[in-house]
Amino acid sequence: MAYHLLQRDQRGAERLAHALSHALETIRHCEKCNSFTEVEVCDLCLSPKRDAHVLCVVETPADMMMMEQAHCYRGMYFVLMGRLSPLDGIGPREIHLDRLVRRATDGIVQEVILATNFTVEGEATAHYISELLTPRGIKVTRIARGLPVGGELEHVDSGTLAQAVLERRNVA
Amino acid sequence: MAYHLLQRDQRGAERLAHALSHALETIRHCEKCNSFTEVEVCDLCLSPKRDAHVLCVVETPADMMMMEQAHCYRGMYFVLMGRLSPLDGIGPREIHLDRLVRRATDGIVQEVILATNFTVEGEATAHYISELLTPRGIKVTRIARGLPVGGELEHVDSGTLAQAVLERRNVA
Repeated sequence: MAYHLLQRDQRGAERLAHALSHALETIRHCEKCNSFTEVEVCDLCLSPKRDAHVLCVVETPADMMMMEQAHCYRGMYFVLMGRLSPLDGIGPREIHLDRLVRRATDGIVQEVILATNFTVEGEATAHYISELLTPRGIKVTRIARGLPVGGELEHVDSGTLAQAVLERRNVA
Repeated sequence: MAYHLLQRDQRGAERLAHALSHALETIRHCEKCNSFTEVEVCDLCLSPKRDAHVLCVVETPADMMMMEQAHCYRGMYFVLMGRLSPLDGIGPREIHLDRLVRRATDGIVQEVILATNFTVEGEATAHYISELLTPRGIKVTRIARGLPVGGELEHVDSGTLAQAVLERRNVA
């Protein structure tokens, strides 16, 4: 791409440079959900159609986009912009947990859904956050683990199958 | 394989034929779990180490083997040898639901775990069985659906993500 721009499209290179510096100047984090935005509070956080009683915690803006594309959730978000990872020097402060606690204890939020990944770091982050919020009287939930939709026992790894049996649910 | 046996290994073909007819004569269904066995009641059903209070319903002996390999379950099994599939002429009688009901209401079984696949037919089968057993006062549970162990939001299909949010669980 660099060669193409320099050899064949110098005007394009100029436009790209301007666009990037403009983005660097204007893109900031939303005051409420911490995702990328150009304004103080992003459109999603301002929307009256969203349910302000539920707050979903995700690791990245890409995860937030996945949730929106699944059309399964109408509440608010908080984007950590990372996950706890002590070896990389990422602690509670780097993923803005102080702001998350303030956001979750605003008196409107009634449930916090932890939708961090099911990796070791994502699980540790979810556990840490639940330890922070549960003593403050907030209902904390975690998205489910188990077999995928359309999944068959024969084609699933044994760790996932074990978890699906362990976390089985009552049939109403 | 047929050409090899006929051209190069006629003794082998004879041995295979004997083995197959021997299997056809001796292999039968276990009186208790309905899986394949050579005796009246299979080793697993006779084992005193298994928990007789829990009964896990699976579609095939292969699914039962998957459960055993996951080392997550110490109870008994019932193998349907299929799933409800009206278009293929497979109804409640073909998957031995009368025997399952008798097995589940023997007074010892306290919980029936439905571990049929999460396909359309597996789901329909699970629903049908729960409708049969719940009115008889038996606790019926279903293995969990959701993100796989190690799973990340970015790499999961939106149907599974939606289900994981819908079936989120309280953090203790």
